Amino acid sequence: MGSFFGTVFRVATWGESHGGGIGVVIDGCPPRLPLSEEDIQIELDRRRPGQSSFVTQRKESDRAEILSGVFQGYTLGTPIAILVRNTDARPEAYEEMREKFRPSHADFTYQAKYGIRNWEGGGRSSARETIGRVAAGAVASKLLRKLYPDIQIVAFVSSIHDIDASIDPLVVTREMVEANPIRCPDPSAAEKMAERIRQARSEGDSVGGVICCVVKGVPPGLGDPVFDRLEADLAKAMLSLPATKGFQIGSGFAGTRLRGSEHNDPFVPGPAGTIVTTTNHSGGVQGGISNGQPIIFWTAFKPTATIAKTQQTVDVKGNPTDLAARGRHDPCVLPRAVPIVEAMTAIVLADHSLRQKTVDVLPPLPTSNPHRSTQSQI
Amino acid sequence: MGSFFGTVFRVATWGESHGGGIGVVIDGCPPRLPLSEEDIQIELDRRRPGQSSFVTQRKESDRAEILSGVFQGYTLGTPIAILVRNTDARPEAYEEMREKFRPSHADFTYQAKYGIRNWEGGGRSSARETIGRVAAGAVASKLLRKLYPDIQIVAFVSSIHDIDASIDPLVVTREMVEANPIRCPDPSAAEKMAERIRQARSEGDSVGGVICCVVKGVPPGLGDPVFDRLEADLAKAMLSLPATKGFQIGSGFAGTRLRGSEHNDPFVPGPAGTIVTTTNHSGGVQGGISNGQPIIFWTAFKPTATIAKTQQTVDVKGNPTDLAARGRHDPCVLPRAVPIVEAMTAIVLADHSLRQKTVDVLPPLPTSNPHRSTQSQI
Amino acid sequence: MGSFFGTVFRVATWGESHGGGIGVVIDGCPPRLPLSEEDIQIELDRRRPGQSSFVTQRKESDRAEILSGVFQGYTLGTPIAILVRNTDARPEAYEEMREKFRPSHADFTYQAKYGIRNWEGGGRSSARETIGRVAAGAVASKLLRKLYPDIQIVAFVSSIHDIDASIDPLVVTREMVEANPIRCPDPSAAEKMAERIRQARSEGDSVGGVICCVVKGVPPGLGDPVFDRLEADLAKAMLSLPATKGFQIGSGFAGTRLRGSEHNDPFVPGPAGTIVTTTNHSGGVQGGISNGQPIIFWTAFKPTATIAKTQQTVDVKGNPTDLAARGRHDPCVLPRAVPIVEAMTAIVLADHSLRQKTVDVLPPLPTSNPHRSTQSQI
Amino acid sequence: MGSFFGTVFRVATWGESHGGGIGVVIDGCPPRLPLSEEDIQIELDRRRPGQSSFVTQRKESDRAEILSGVFQGYTLGTPIAILVRNTDARPEAYEEMREKFRPSHADFTYQAKYGIRNWEGGGRSSARETIGRVAAGAVASKLLRKLYPDIQIVAFVSSIHDIDASIDPLVVTREMVEANPIRCPDPSAAEKMAERIRQARSEGDSVGGVICCVVKGVPPGLGDPVFDRLEADLAKAMLSLPATKGFQIGSGFAGTRLRGSEHNDPFVPGPAGTIVTTTNHSGGVQGGISNGQPIIFWTAFKPTATIAKTQQTVDVKGNPTDLAARGRHDPCVLPRAVPIVEAMTAIVLADHSLRQKTVDVLPPLPTSNPHRSTQSQI
Repeated sequence: MGSFFGTVFRVATWGESHGGGIGVVIDGCPPRLPLSEEDIQIELDRRRPGQSSFVTQRKESDRAEILSGVFQGYTLGTPIAILVRNTDARPEAYEEMREKFRPSHADFTYQAKYGIRNWEGGGRSSARETIGRVAAGAVASKLLRKLYPDIQIVAFVSSIHDIDASIDPLVVTREMVEANPIRCPDPSAAEKMAERIRQARSEGDSVGGVICCVVKGVPPGLGDPVFDRLEADLAKAMLSLPATKGFQIGSGFAGTRLRGSEHNDPFVPGPAGTIVTTTNHSGGVQGGISNGQPIIFWTAFKPTATIAKTQQTVDVKGNPTDLAARGRHDPCVLPRAVPIVEAMTAIVLADHSLRQKTVDVLPPLPTSNPHRSTQSQI
Repeated sequence: MGSFFGTVFRVATWGESHGGGIGVVIDGCPPRLPLSEEDIQIELDRRRPGQSSFVTQRKESDRAEILSGVFQGYTLGTPIAILVRNTDARPEAYEEMREKFRPSHADFTYQAKYGIRNWEGGGRSSARETIGRVAAGAVASKLLRKLYPDIQIVAFVSSIHDIDASIDPLVVTREMVEANPIRCPDPSAAEKMAERIRQARSEGDSVGGVICCVVKGVPPGLGDPVFDRLEADLAKAMLSLPATKGFQIGSGFAGTRLRGSEHNDPFVPGPAGTIVTTTNHSGGVQGGISNGQPIIFWTAFKPTATIAKTQQTVDVKGNPTDLAARGRHDPCVLPRAVPIVEAMTAIVLADHSLRQKTVDVLPPLPTSNPHRSTQSQI
Repeated sequence: MGSFFGTVFRVATWGESHGGGIGVVIDGCPPRLPLSEEDIQIELDRRRPGQSSFVTQRKESDRAEILSGVFQGYTLGTPIAILVRNTDARPEAYEEMREKFRPSHADFTYQAKYGIRNWEGGGRSSARETIGRVAAGAVASKLLRKLYPDIQIVAFVSSIHDIDASIDPLVVTREMVEANPIRCPDPSAAEKMAERIRQARSEGDSVGGVICCVVKGVPPGLGDPVFDRLEADLAKAMLSLPATKGFQIGSGFAGTRLRGSEHNDPFVPGPAGTIVTTTNHSGGVQGGISNGQPIIFWTAFKPTATIAKTQQTVDVKGNPTDLAARGRHDPCVLPRAVPIVEAMTAIVLADHSLRQKTVDVLPPLPTSNPHRSTQSQI
Repeated sequence: MGSFFGTVFRVATWGESHGGGIGVVIDGCPPRLPLSEEDIQIELDRRRPGQSSFVTQRKESDRAEILSGVFQGYTLGTPIAILVRNTDARPEAYEEMREKFRPSHADFTYQAKYGIRNWEGGGRSSARETIGRVAAGAVASKLLRKLYPDIQIVAFVSSIHDIDASIDPLVVTREMVEANPIRCPDPSAAEKMAERIRQARSEGDSVGGVICCVVKGVPPGLGDPVFDRLEADLAKAMLSLPATKGFQIGSGFAGTRLRGSEHNDPFVPGPAGTIVTTTNHSGGVQGGISNGQPIIFWTAFKPTATIAKTQQTVDVKGNPTDLAARGRHDPCVLPRAVPIVEAMTAIVLADHSLRQKTVDVLPPLPTSNPHRSTQSQI
């Protein structure tokens, strides 16, 4: 029962890497949203395998079919079902995984939990599962752009292995991200990252890295204390992605080394009667609620577990053995994970945007103050 | 609607720092669990204010009263309601907050979201809210110890400001943690941390830090892909705590700088037919599911936002002003956050333990293998 | 985990008849709603025991205390916790139930489900549990009156045993209902019902009946196909009440004996550009969504299970025995169930009202038609 | 957000009558359940249109495709997605509905709620939506039979219009139900019902009726007080079906005319140390929890709203008009509703069966009694 996500904007994803397909059902998307298969395809194409030499060479066109919930180009308010067929499945490449547990992969834990597993290509634990998230994220993004015309959700690769991009996250645009196949907006770092990935691949190895995500144009007020704080739901969304090991927002772990007087973000009057902060150690969220500043967070992705190098492991009977993975896999998941991070971010924000519609329903208090007006934008 | 948490072991917390009290309702706790108010009081006493000079001097006895769900010393299976009264509220100390937004606190965002706020002591955004979590965590811990007799959940302060403890997390015991008021099991670091906190307080300032949490004795199989992966629910639980800015599990952010061949945890046969790993970069979770190794993760806490130093801010009308906080507050939340981290960890694990009971209900497959037996421990 | 209810306007009730008290936590109530303990007390007084000779003589003042979520007379948007203490508990009257299962009561099934039960007065299965519902219903009603100023929720006793009230449900007002202790707006029937209850009590017996509920002033658009149709959530709400055995809406069971051409409700233009129906066999709901006509439904309550007459049963060891119940109980629950039916109705409608706020968020379609305007009232 | 149902055994249905298809995602089905497309097809064939002259003549083969969650004939524990394509859509037959609201159908309320509607054949409000429920019900049934080998869920038509079957519900078998196209196990009544339906159809009219459902072989202990009482969840499930107007369990509305001493079900020792009742006015549920006796309930279905007879209505601009429905529709939905009632019953019971696995996890109380043993069957 872990494949349902969200409270109002709800998604249910399904599918294994080597079954009939992958998909998602979205319930709670408001009616009257213009939506086409093309809206979804654009995002799916960004996560598709085979885009460059840095990612898996599996050949999947990953065509999205909208099966329900859209009529004459608009959402109906009823569930939106989206299907992507699997076509280039080659289960024979995984025959060895039937008998052996890949180190640091999900083979052993799926077997321990379920007492059965689809060993053809990783089954449900395959990153192919994220197709449903990306499709739902495309719908969420479309909704968010209708609700907040200025919203921008931009993720990018900020490090690969020990190579760090040198860039101000706040100036990054999607164009800068898409300018190279690494999806790192610092071209010089991107080149080094590409070389590092090539090298890892040639050695039958893999590398990880960090993705940064920035959201601009979200009004104050999103997030629902205490358990559904905005950063809590973002953290859950990120750590629910395959291969993630960490999340930090605003000042993150480094901020623990500052003093309160250094870390606090002073408030000052902003344009048009708004209130803004002069620094953003908070990362756009205070007390679990967006404060109108850019939301900025980082997600750590470990090096891909499936590698061609020979590794020590055990077989399903528990006997020691070794394994050199065949099958097609990414030597580095980060370039393709960029649209996935954006998709999960959009899903969380769409959900909280609709939730806030249930909060702001009664008239202002009699003794109003001007800053309640910020809320009416929500 | 953000104050409900959990799927099977469900908690609903409530309360403000300066209302009638704080509490929690737990629904879904199994019947026949021995439970007394003392079980809860022990944990509440660990988070209580006024324990040492390093924490807020608010005087609260924080006595837990079980109002329902327990009969003759055993849980009934019906909701367990726990109430802690507020007694030492001094709203007058907060009069200034009525008109001014504390930097990096939740005053502004609560006002933006709700168009009203309880300005007496932070209201719902006060760390006093965590009493409900600690009470529920005490019940969850009791349940977990019945389900897994060997389970140990131990959190401790691993850094304060720029002082890092030097300790192997796997050897830390609760006794070592409780041996000093900082709750850092490295006595030499603890002394320096104490001095650093004293200094920050004396300067009207505050410091943050990192808490490490280790869980031993959890069987393989807990966690529910894809959205409710164990690390995802732990990340949400931690980021839902006040003042948190980051979460990492296993190798975390540092792990992104390793190669796959270095990062992967080789499987080897373990004692009694089990399968274990020789390293634990995974932090006890693979594919979103516990693998039987120790679960280890870190949570970053920013320096306390409320400080006595004068800070730049705006008033509720948006005019620039400054503020030097009065009221009682912690110069460093970490010592008191240790039991809170443990409580949220216990709640997540209790929920997933019960969820797993709904997974493992049918007989093994005809072609069984010995490692399915690991699951029967769950 | 059955004590949580609702999706946006969420309630968590707790408490046994003979524990520390009874209460409710409401999460998701919007901020800025005027709310006082008196608002809740008015409704609690209507369900309180000891109001007349027709109901249990247990003496409980049932004073509501709001513990959180309200500040200076307004809701904060944070959880509202309400507590009612138990005071007149007399567990000794129930000593016999420790060893014997009352026929058609919950003693046996609670024992079978939980392997433990609070035998003092019925525990969680006692109708005293409904205090939490009535308190939450009072909050929901207050909210609904703010959202829809013309809304009226009026329930009344339409039959007791074989005595049927003769009254047009649409003309019934709360004043007519409260005019007699039976809460039947047909005074002549009410008198006969009173006599029938008196007689049953004098013979150590009990009687049941039917409660009708009418809701006027709800706009079209509430209800969420397919599973959360408005009538589905009302049916669940009613059948979740103790002692209920049936629910029907509009034409109900009798409507199955009509033809489609007789049963269909013709549409005609209504006042102010609205669309109305000339009949209301639908009971105000079509396709699971309110149509703006009065919502009308009936709930069947069985005769009280606990009776003074000697009955055949078994003891907890399974041996045949007999039982003549002591303890204080209602010979007929219906008069006191009227406010409970209204409360659950209000909770369902408050939840769906807030849910609809998440539906109606995007602009009308370009090719609009005038009847979309009915929705803007929602 | 009304298309998700269930707490542990969760379903998400989607699809309109004239879109790409209809389907369901089931999350929370335990692993290792044998499952094939044939298991699902059998049930879909029972609800398929065109089976007899009494139902709609739409030609749909309604072939189920399992897209995920099953591997080599067994469930994986991951989401099971099932797809049924629409093939015989004839939207042109519905052109008139674009401009006119069918009386007592969902056209007007969908328009009022969503501000848009799929007017081709009823869209999401079409009974075709129930395909997803029947598919999920087939999986739930398979699971229940593994958990409780003796379980039987049998629904049948107990009345059509004013013709009542004369049969003891407890003796009805599926064979008796399937013996005639009306699905009424009283052959003589079935014949009259058939004639009544034929007559209604020939007159361009429709008829309704009542379906009875009996569940045998469920152990004591299922159901979750207070809101998720078993009868509450069954009532919601039934009232969530198209065209339903009422639900009653056990003695139902008629039981309100009995006295407590007549209505109570005496307990007596049963076979093999069990406890049984001599009557079953409770309908198998007491205090919201199954008591081991047969669960028996009735659901009222109104006459089909779409009829060929000319009816008074309004157009989408609110102007009076009239309408004689074209399109293919059932003059009586009851024969095809029988498998749908069974499906929803199975879904509710599967969910509560798995929920009970989270209740019965701790050892019996020290002072045990023999009747706790009944629980171990659960």
